Amino acid sequence: MGNFDVMPDRHNTNTWKWDGEGKGALYPMGTADMDFRMPDVIRDALHQKIDQGVLSYAADKSYFSEAFARYQKKHYGLEIDPSDVFCGTALMAVYKVLLETYTAPGDGVIVQTPTFGHLYNVPRNNGRMVYENRLLYNREEGTWTINFEELETMVKDPRVRMLVVCNPGNPVTRGLTEEEMKRMYDLCNANDVIMLSDEIHSDVYYDGRKHVSVLHVCDEAQHNCILLTSPGKVFGVPGLKIAITVIHDPKLKARYQVVSNNCRVDVIDLGMVAVAAGFDGADAYIAELQEALQKNKDYIVKFFAENDMKIRLTKPEASYLFWLDFSDWNMSCAELAELLKKYGIVYSDGTEFGPGNEGFMRMNIATTFTQVCGMCDALKKCYTENIA
Amino acid sequence: MGNFDVMPDRHNTNTWKWDGEGKGALYPMGTADMDFRMPDVIRDALHQKIDQGVLSYAADKSYFSEAFARYQKKHYGLEIDPSDVFCGTALMAVYKVLLETYTAPGDGVIVQTPTFGHLYNVPRNNGRMVYENRLLYNREEGTWTINFEELETMVKDPRVRMLVVCNPGNPVTRGLTEEEMKRMYDLCNANDVIMLSDEIHSDVYYDGRKHVSVLHVCDEAQHNCILLTSPGKVFGVPGLKIAITVIHDPKLKARYQVVSNNCRVDVIDLGMVAVAAGFDGADAYIAELQEALQKNKDYIVKFFAENDMKIRLTKPEASYLFWLDFSDWNMSCAELAELLKKYGIVYSDGTEFGPGNEGFMRMNIATTFTQVCGMCDALKKCYTENIA
Repeated sequence: MGNFDVMPDRHNTNTWKWDGEGKGALYPMGTADMDFRMPDVIRDALHQKIDQGVLSYAADKSYFSEAFARYQKKHYGLEIDPSDVFCGTALMAVYKVLLETYTAPGDGVIVQTPTFGHLYNVPRNNGRMVYENRLLYNREEGTWTINFEELETMVKDPRVRMLVVCNPGNPVTRGLTEEEMKRMYDLCNANDVIMLSDEIHSDVYYDGRKHVSVLHVCDEAQHNCILLTSPGKVFGVPGLKIAITVIHDPKLKARYQVVSNNCRVDVIDLGMVAVAAGFDGADAYIAELQEALQKNKDYIVKFFAENDMKIRLTKPEASYLFWLDFSDWNMSCAELAELLKKYGIVYSDGTEFGPGNEGFMRMNIATTFTQVCGMCDALKKCYTENIA
Repeated sequence: MGNFDVMPDRHNTNTWKWDGEGKGALYPMGTADMDFRMPDVIRDALHQKIDQGVLSYAADKSYFSEAFARYQKKHYGLEIDPSDVFCGTALMAVYKVLLETYTAPGDGVIVQTPTFGHLYNVPRNNGRMVYENRLLYNREEGTWTINFEELETMVKDPRVRMLVVCNPGNPVTRGLTEEEMKRMYDLCNANDVIMLSDEIHSDVYYDGRKHVSVLHVCDEAQHNCILLTSPGKVFGVPGLKIAITVIHDPKLKARYQVVSNNCRVDVIDLGMVAVAAGFDGADAYIAELQEALQKNKDYIVKFFAENDMKIRLTKPEASYLFWLDFSDWNMSCAELAELLKKYGIVYSDGTEFGPGNEGFMRMNIATTFTQVCGMCDALKKCYTENIA
């Protein structure tokens, strides 16, 4: 049995997924972590660092930036200058620092919904004006695409300073194409709007698709371009909250260096050590993870195709967070959650992903195949007994 | 040999103290960490958490607040309501959030220098007007006391919103008296100024002195009162960057809950687990640590008294960071650092502790007695060969 066939016992380990929102559930598939053990190389690096006896402040952080650059080169063919790599704690804290660095209260920030709720909430709750560039939903096809017409108008609004892109899209499981990414970047750059690309789920793509980073499509000088990411998701250690930004544009970089230094969102050395070990030594882990998730994805797509449950599954291209449209059940998210819980299932509430997502749920498939099969059966039972 | 007689080998473990500023030095006594192994109970808690396989988001954080409250009760006799305890990552990031919560750019913040540099720099660099309430130095006695006359004027300035106190004082090794703390609090509260008390070094006092927290002297409703602290220093894990605030005042608390939530400076669950284990299970460690530091302190005080090196040692009352006045050597901090390095000694540069500290150096005595003795001899040699 491989690492991805066996779940570590996650009960009573005080995780939000299993002991919080998913307490008592058979299929807690909400919170975006994985039910897989972290790579051995990361576990060993953590133990070794702790056994040094003191956890203190790092002398040198370049090893981390260099390991990250090697990883990006190896996996995505990107050439990243390690000196452009910044590391902090908590992706959303760093996002807030980025907003503070480049925008003032009252400035406009474009956010493409449905999206990870905090990408929308953090600018809104910090006094920025959020322009909602909602993705276009093709209900029959189960696809979400960018509303470029609206976006073109928005980026020309002089109050707008930033476009926030989430690629692959959480929760819409989209891996944006080179054409889409380039078109967005060009629009931004032509209007002196910063394109901030959250690519935290870049390591999981299906059916041979490739990740297209903002760094693949920007101009050589990387004007108006910021990559935001974290290796925590793919390495099973989101709780270490390592957040990485890549900023090459000299004006943006100089400003970030000063402002982020004044915000003191420092990185935890223990986390850096662990993740750096993963960048260099977890390729086999990632390959096996991708295989396991592909198997889960194939099963789910087939199951949904063969079993009409009046649920529309957004076509999964990337990431382990699937997007389900329950609108034909005619229930609110709260009602859905209550009903599903009776069948042992917990998903994430669609209303957490920006306005207008009542009746949607997000399903985390980063668990064992056995769990996925069990969940599908439970979901079908729920449908049969209540909706059909 | 006890834990405090033997130093773990800290060379090549990538710490700023030994491999950064102290690289190659025999006596690196700058950076504020300790050359002692963390308590076994903390080490074991870290290993156990890692061996669960996944590091994710905590379901419940109340265990941490409750353990902290028990610790504060046991060590300082304080009654803290666990629901008033907030936990974040990085003390200075949390300080910045506190400034953002209660002050606007242009508002006045009183800082008592000499102090930990970031207590001064963070408000200044974030657009707050820093009022420097410099401590009064009695050069002959080697003591630093509060300039109440100046402080009284400052708190009445309508632009002033906050007084930042560091108790025990870093770098002035002062443990403030109940009278001093109470007088400051009463001044603040009468003028609707928040008293923010950084008490990160509260666990180390000498000669039977007792720590006086702001929570000992405030009114029952804890109006205008905030405690900021971290257990990282005393537990040998400052790199976990756990930062704790205690806010009971309902108006302050409600505002902090909202603003800090929008800043997303989240805590690392791994660190909380470790530190909570320390709160409950490291009393013997703390007692032995205090004993080891008392021995170091007694030796240093005696050595400085018996060997006139024209260095004025501020009378150490608390904390392991001692404050040395080299002004009789007539050298800048940069020159002092260069000279001391020739004798294997590294201290922290006094100019890092706010304006006006040229010629001062801070010495970290949290190391083995052997190291302390060796350093004293090297310092004397340096004096004899260059200054005498």
